[in-house]
Amino acid sequence: MRYSKAFIPTLKEVPKDATMPSHVLLLRGGYARAVGAGIYELLPLGLRVLHKIAGIIRDEMDAAGAQEVLMPALLPAEYFKESGRWDSFGETLLRLKDRKLADYHLGPTHEEIITDMVRRDVGSYRQLPLNLYQIQTKFRDEARPRAGLLRCREFTMKDAYSFDVDEAGALRSYESMRVAYCKIFDRIGLQYRMVQADSGAMGGSTSAEFQVLASSGEDAIVACTQCDYAANVEVAVTKAIDAAQTSAADTPAMEKVATPGKRSIQDVVAFLGNGLTAARMFKSLIYTAGTRSVMVVVRGDHEVNEIKLAKQLGVSEVHLAPDNEVFRVTRAPVGFAGPVGFVGEVIADNAVASIVDGVTGANEKDLHFTHVRFGRDFNAPLADVRNVTDGDTCASCGGALKSYRGIEAGHIFVLGTHYTEKLKATYATENRETKTIVMGCYGIGVSRLIAATIEQNHDEQGIVWPMSVAPYQVMITPLSTKPGAVIEAAEALYAELTSLGIEVLFDDRDERPGVKFKDADLLGIPLRLTIGDKSLAAGSVELKLRNQKDVELVPREGCVTVVRDLIDRLKTGTK
Amino acid sequence: MRYSKAFIPTLKEVPKDATMPSHVLLLRGGYARAVGAGIYELLPLGLRVLHKIAGIIRDEMDAAGAQEVLMPALLPAEYFKESGRWDSFGETLLRLKDRKLADYHLGPTHEEIITDMVRRDVGSYRQLPLNLYQIQTKFRDEARPRAGLLRCREFTMKDAYSFDVDEAGALRSYESMRVAYCKIFDRIGLQYRMVQADSGAMGGSTSAEFQVLASSGEDAIVACTQCDYAANVEVAVTKAIDAAQTSAADTPAMEKVATPGKRSIQDVVAFLGNGLTAARMFKSLIYTAGTRSVMVVVRGDHEVNEIKLAKQLGVSEVHLAPDNEVFRVTRAPVGFAGPVGFVGEVIADNAVASIVDGVTGANEKDLHFTHVRFGRDFNAPLADVRNVTDGDTCASCGGALKSYRGIEAGHIFVLGTHYTEKLKATYATENRETKTIVMGCYGIGVSRLIAATIEQNHDEQGIVWPMSVAPYQVMITPLSTKPGAVIEAAEALYAELTSLGIEVLFDDRDERPGVKFKDADLLGIPLRLTIGDKSLAAGSVELKLRNQKDVELVPREGCVTVVRDLIDRLKTGTK
Repeated sequence: MRYSKAFIPTLKEVPKDATMPSHVLLLRGGYARAVGAGIYELLPLGLRVLHKIAGIIRDEMDAAGAQEVLMPALLPAEYFKESGRWDSFGETLLRLKDRKLADYHLGPTHEEIITDMVRRDVGSYRQLPLNLYQIQTKFRDEARPRAGLLRCREFTMKDAYSFDVDEAGALRSYESMRVAYCKIFDRIGLQYRMVQADSGAMGGSTSAEFQVLASSGEDAIVACTQCDYAANVEVAVTKAIDAAQTSAADTPAMEKVATPGKRSIQDVVAFLGNGLTAARMFKSLIYTAGTRSVMVVVRGDHEVNEIKLAKQLGVSEVHLAPDNEVFRVTRAPVGFAGPVGFVGEVIADNAVASIVDGVTGANEKDLHFTHVRFGRDFNAPLADVRNVTDGDTCASCGGALKSYRGIEAGHIFVLGTHYTEKLKATYATENRETKTIVMGCYGIGVSRLIAATIEQNHDEQGIVWPMSVAPYQVMITPLSTKPGAVIEAAEALYAELTSLGIEVLFDDRDERPGVKFKDADLLGIPLRLTIGDKSLAAGSVELKLRNQKDVELVPREGCVTVVRDLIDRLKTGTK
Repeated sequence: MRYSKAFIPTLKEVPKDATMPSHVLLLRGGYARAVGAGIYELLPLGLRVLHKIAGIIRDEMDAAGAQEVLMPALLPAEYFKESGRWDSFGETLLRLKDRKLADYHLGPTHEEIITDMVRRDVGSYRQLPLNLYQIQTKFRDEARPRAGLLRCREFTMKDAYSFDVDEAGALRSYESMRVAYCKIFDRIGLQYRMVQADSGAMGGSTSAEFQVLASSGEDAIVACTQCDYAANVEVAVTKAIDAAQTSAADTPAMEKVATPGKRSIQDVVAFLGNGLTAARMFKSLIYTAGTRSVMVVVRGDHEVNEIKLAKQLGVSEVHLAPDNEVFRVTRAPVGFAGPVGFVGEVIADNAVASIVDGVTGANEKDLHFTHVRFGRDFNAPLADVRNVTDGDTCASCGGALKSYRGIEAGHIFVLGTHYTEKLKATYATENRETKTIVMGCYGIGVSRLIAATIEQNHDEQGIVWPMSVAPYQVMITPLSTKPGAVIEAAEALYAELTSLGIEVLFDDRDERPGVKFKDADLLGIPLRLTIGDKSLAAGSVELKLRNQKDVELVPREGCVTVVRDLIDRLKTGTK
């Protein structure tokens, strides 16, 4: 493609509202534009990347025996009404009526529709297992669409659904998708972790997330530095910290001290001083769990994990109690709650048991207790109700856990019979018994992967595409476009490379070299060939990889072979 | 692909409600299924055809210099409000509100969105011309979705938009799209005509439709048997029939005759007999045109063309007047209107002037006039207000016109500045003047083409795919799947062909040959290789083309080369 003809509207300014690197660079590089909140159009470069990613996904899904279909986005309400999600999906479901005032919605995911397809056209064990997928546009009215292509209201997703005769079959399908997903993320060239995840609203049992590692990621994940253990912090576990080994007699007697206006852990630590650390504070928070108010005690340097807490309390969700409820329960303003003498329901995190000389609120305004010891001054049922954090001990191997930020780019589930029971998708066994089909589902955020790849592959100057998904593989930059040897050599090289099927962006614009280099860095094409008077006179062209600083001189003769081999090597990841 | 693993749920029964051959065969062949009225899912075979068609379109659009983008389907109302189509699109526009109750709609077409993209990112004559296209899902709440993939509410469309500095540039873009469209339809292997068409609601000037010829087609088109002239009957013209050459004295005096209860042309012709034909009747109809009631007189064997009539009357649309209006205007019940003595507004078709001895209603119940002559017994302004019909004379060359049925599969327009003015999409000329961009738009119904191709390529047994868009190129049918020479040879052939990149559906099912042949004919794979004991013993396999009756024996050795050459020949249309 000749740059002079290409629609690549780059921007010099960082667009306002854009803070995430991928958001900024997709806009600045002319890859994408917003049409509305969380609604984007892909310009030619952006669509080329989407097609590359989709191509890799298709390859691996097909190789795993999945078959591609295409389901509609405009859906009659009846299917979601059958599963109960017409109501449970809430405001995220975009609903509409047709000219006859019948109820429709836009598809946020397609479990019901594919299950309907299967109950209609699959009747026998001989037709199973079956794995059907699509690469299709999804619609979710997110409360806070943000960060460009990372969280959109309209986005491209690959969703696959497996159908098996039993749970063992479903686990085989799940395993084959796990392997396919690893191949997909490997081929794109991403650093990622497969992590244990909360199955949440999908109602499944086994599930895992594929998290693309990026410091800007929205998800917190934890991985062992020694073994394979990795999990979303929502569900990550750690070895319980050993309870205090010292005897209670070593701890001075509890004392009530004045802490005027000191409500936060940091304020109390700073105010009391004397070697006190957050890890010696009993952080005490009041949560609402259904109709109950529960005091949750964690170490001052730990965070409550609301998903674990809700599971422990046997409710579907918990949230921090409002101020008036805190006052009603503790008889003190917010900031002075504590378990000592508290008569309501309390639960404490396992790590609390190891605090031998701690500080906590006294349930009175401007007062705290010091020299507090779990088991001596108060008691509470212990459980794992906190987020695992850096340096915690791996429950599997005893190694140190490390926390990362990640972008959820894939999610695989064993769904069991959740949907197939509701929609009555059954099959006849060899003995003509009727059984319910066992289902799995497997998603990849295709358009999100464009952004996730950039979050992991960029620098100050712009994007640094992996070869596998770059919109063009090579950029040819002639330093002059005036009639002469330079532009002639560039044209010849352009013709040679494209005739080999290599994807070239040929910067034939009449611009200064500085402008061309700046744009090349912004766009992030992996391999740049610069053609100038001097190197050409020496029979060479300059070859530069976007992800490296050094420029290499390669002979003009044989340059095409060098480039082709380099592309092949970079595409297969054998760097 | 092994048939035993493939999701191809064929149906034995013709589904109710399906009457069009493509609709029946897409359902019976397991290509598509309905999810709702006019909302379909494509199963693996159907999606393969869609991808093939999209691939051909992409090739030719790219070769013509167009660049692919992807616009969203969920659109904030503001863009259509800016162009006025938020109101004018009526009930066909699917409207919805998001969680903040803001207005959105689903995209039925994208002129406004692409114009917004261009006004935002194009500012200079140096960025023009520009041609951007997408292959994307469109939504239109059709009043009567029908005929499977021929008229859907959700469908796949290729829409392209050109942007030029002036009308001459726009015509060049239009011409390049015309050529690309011909290549696309040629490569698919369709019989089609490019015809003049009504620009209608798009507000353009120059436009043409690409009609796929099919007896089941919804559109009537007319083409000259001698020259290139072809047009949709909506706008087709013919040479006016010469006015009567005989003198008025040769026509007997007008007479009022009783025609009790004879309201239709056929009834009056049959009742009066005596050599009277429909071509000698003055068919007189009352039309409502805005606030006016107009009598339109055409020959009894002709049909009023409402688009031409509306243009003649200077209104946007006309419709037949209701019975009470007919009575008010003619003072007679429906069936007895006529121009003789009529005092209201009348317009007559050109052909009426050649009736020298005709019959018409007398504007009195149960009475008609005979021996009526235009110019003697009544007068009216003459104009072209009828549909051209078989045997009419070509206005260009004098040849005979012939009528066909067609399926509109493509439409190309010069839009001018209709949208660019409304949305203020301007550019700076070389002299820094601000000018409005001139636009064109070019659509192809991609999913409709699946159905149109079947309408033109099927027989009693099933689909007969052209090689270019067939879901698989070759079907291998072993007559036995029991361990032995036959299945071994079939497996070997399957491996050889697929290793060459040939797309093979391998019927490895344990079914009787009759069942396999029937399914092969239903699915319509262009080339079938049958492997049986006898032919194999003779060192041969049977080769049969789906569109031919004869079976050919080809040597097992070299069979792969024969198949590859045949596919190449059939793909390029050199049959």
